Amino acid sequence: MTTLEIMRRAKAAAPALAAADGETKNTALMAMADMLEKGTESILAANALDLKAAEGSIGAVMLDRLTLTKERIKAMAEGIRSVAALPDPVGRVISSVTRPNGLVIEKRGVPLGVVAIIYESRPNVTSDAAVLALKSGNACILRCGKEARCSAAAVTECMRAGLEKAGLSRDLVQLVEDTSRRSAEELMTGVGYIDLLIPRGGAGLIRACMEKAKVPCVQTGTGICHIYVDAAADLDMACNIVDNAKTSRPSVCNAAEVCLVHRAAAESFLPMLHKRLVTDRISAGKQPVELRLDEGALALIPGTPAGAEDFDTEFLDYILAVKLVDGVEAAAEHIAAHSTGHSEAIITSDEAAARRFTAAVDSAAVYVNASTRFTDGGEFGLGCEMGISTQKLHARGPMGLEELTSYKYVIRGNGQIR
Amino acid sequence: MTTLEIMRRAKAAAPALAAADGETKNTALMAMADMLEKGTESILAANALDLKAAEGSIGAVMLDRLTLTKERIKAMAEGIRSVAALPDPVGRVISSVTRPNGLVIEKRGVPLGVVAIIYESRPNVTSDAAVLALKSGNACILRCGKEARCSAAAVTECMRAGLEKAGLSRDLVQLVEDTSRRSAEELMTGVGYIDLLIPRGGAGLIRACMEKAKVPCVQTGTGICHIYVDAAADLDMACNIVDNAKTSRPSVCNAAEVCLVHRAAAESFLPMLHKRLVTDRISAGKQPVELRLDEGALALIPGTPAGAEDFDTEFLDYILAVKLVDGVEAAAEHIAAHSTGHSEAIITSDEAAARRFTAAVDSAAVYVNASTRFTDGGEFGLGCEMGISTQKLHARGPMGLEELTSYKYVIRGNGQIR
Repeated sequence: MTTLEIMRRAKAAAPALAAADGETKNTALMAMADMLEKGTESILAANALDLKAAEGSIGAVMLDRLTLTKERIKAMAEGIRSVAALPDPVGRVISSVTRPNGLVIEKRGVPLGVVAIIYESRPNVTSDAAVLALKSGNACILRCGKEARCSAAAVTECMRAGLEKAGLSRDLVQLVEDTSRRSAEELMTGVGYIDLLIPRGGAGLIRACMEKAKVPCVQTGTGICHIYVDAAADLDMACNIVDNAKTSRPSVCNAAEVCLVHRAAAESFLPMLHKRLVTDRISAGKQPVELRLDEGALALIPGTPAGAEDFDTEFLDYILAVKLVDGVEAAAEHIAAHSTGHSEAIITSDEAAARRFTAAVDSAAVYVNASTRFTDGGEFGLGCEMGISTQKLHARGPMGLEELTSYKYVIRGNGQIR
Repeated sequence: MTTLEIMRRAKAAAPALAAADGETKNTALMAMADMLEKGTESILAANALDLKAAEGSIGAVMLDRLTLTKERIKAMAEGIRSVAALPDPVGRVISSVTRPNGLVIEKRGVPLGVVAIIYESRPNVTSDAAVLALKSGNACILRCGKEARCSAAAVTECMRAGLEKAGLSRDLVQLVEDTSRRSAEELMTGVGYIDLLIPRGGAGLIRACMEKAKVPCVQTGTGICHIYVDAAADLDMACNIVDNAKTSRPSVCNAAEVCLVHRAAAESFLPMLHKRLVTDRISAGKQPVELRLDEGALALIPGTPAGAEDFDTEFLDYILAVKLVDGVEAAAEHIAAHSTGHSEAIITSDEAAARRFTAAVDSAAVYVNASTRFTDGGEFGLGCEMGISTQKLHARGPMGLEELTSYKYVIRGNGQIR
């Protein structure tokens, strides 16, 4: 089917879902979860095709991301059931006011309409994205990377069977079969069909959307996250947090890429950091972190001299750029110039420094004495997420169900004129 | 000054304003209001130049819109003072939650950064837009139509003098002197400088923005608003509301352009409507409303046969398109196909019909038994507005101070790692 036909069908199917009550949507979600589990064999067979095709052309980390197992499929189904259990964002009354003239003005949550997601190779994103869109009343168009196409098609078919079983249109969840750049561009320019496009992926995809998209987009994901270790930091805490933010999962967007250290703390802190991220890891048989150090840091601990580009790179790897700064304001200035606006942290026991930092730093999430790794819908209590928005319009930070809705005003009167 | 240089200056000036407290901003707003009143003579002199240049080339309505008087300038100053009195949207705590791990997650209002407004000839928009942007912590770039350029420059100079007096940067309010299409396009493509562009104007400007803008935009203004008179309507109320929505101010976006009438009500209602909008107005020496009637309506009252385009036109004039429909669902379907998503109303005493209409119609404001003319920031209790958004992303309906802000999460911990 052409992308245009897919968009037409999504648009035609959307109003019935927008009008559906919470129970209807939840029944469909539960049926989708059941069909996914029932379809385990067919999904694993499709996944085997993807894995065979990818063999040799992608690395071990990517291959692991792409691999489905019985357990992973069960986890996807459980994920769907947990989304069903969340409160319905559609129809919620955001505010209600009675005006002096007697008009009652209610602001109510409504679906956006048709949500399209362009993503890469993780097959679980197929079900996550679809059910978040559905729960928030939106028809959903999925466009995955070519590595995952058989798996995504099998997962999508199970979900569509669940929709049908619950009496809803199969067109509410559609997968674009064409995985070429062309179909992505057709979605980006689908004016009148796509109400929100969410590109989930690398910097190249985000840039292409910025340049070509004519439909409303929310940028997600790129994270050059900073941790600033203040002069008044508890250095053990700082060490734990930088270690966690860098090494607990280096490939994700909320991992730290840069550590800024107050000059006054550097002499004590940097040797601790080097021991933790390099020496201790080697002793424990783990991959050490490569430290890319500015001149000041290089005078205190061993490491690679940092180039300018190291402070503008999302490494997504066991690499950390380190730079000495003169204080909170210098740290905030560096962040303003180099951050992608995702997550930044200050480690300090000085309350005034924490206040200055949180006021000056303009990123989606600004932490005091905690790891940047917490920027996540689940960790924020949203129950789930569609991605982390790094833009300021519409949604910022983890996008949960409410961020996939708009609102309308419903006004009741008894003949008021102006 | 080039548009690029203006954007650079706005971006450089914005952070200091974002960090300013409410009192500082209010002091500046009060100083701006005072300087505007003190500058009355120079503003009137500049306005006289605009009026002289426009003479002969624009109509009476436009000429009136462009004209400033002592009273209008006083009203602009009072408008500024009333914005100063509104609550500060920056720093407000939107939500706060303590997670099981002890993290305290606050969602706080923050400015967008730099807001640009492209507008037409009303000089009061110059001060309205600037002060709404400033109060919400944003630097502001104004680009008015060429008819108003001298007036807008004089008003802007007074506001900048007020900023300076209050110790803030003059660069927080800047007027683009170039009123050619080129400067508008430079703003539309000012990626990295403009955080929000608000085009206020006709369909041509909105279309140009849709096609060319690379920066985040919120579309405002175009209103093909519908009133549906149900079978169960109080016909006197319906007559009052249609009359008010059409004739109280035909040139504004919340005026009604189309009246849909239930077939069962048409025989009684249409003669009443014709009397009110045509016969009575002629008797009273007022301009009658031209009725453009579909076939069914034409069989019941005199009028102009409607062409298809009459149901897709924002007349902004004493013209009303009228069409008979079979009920709520048919009305909602017509609205879905022809509305601009601004404001629609149902007139009915049938509660179930009202519920079906408000659920099915997906516009920014949906009324039961009231005039569409109430879609306005002041009428909604927002205190003011920057325009009426007809899009679903970020802001929908009247845009007040909160709609000119984003948010960030500030998270406080005591060493939490994940």
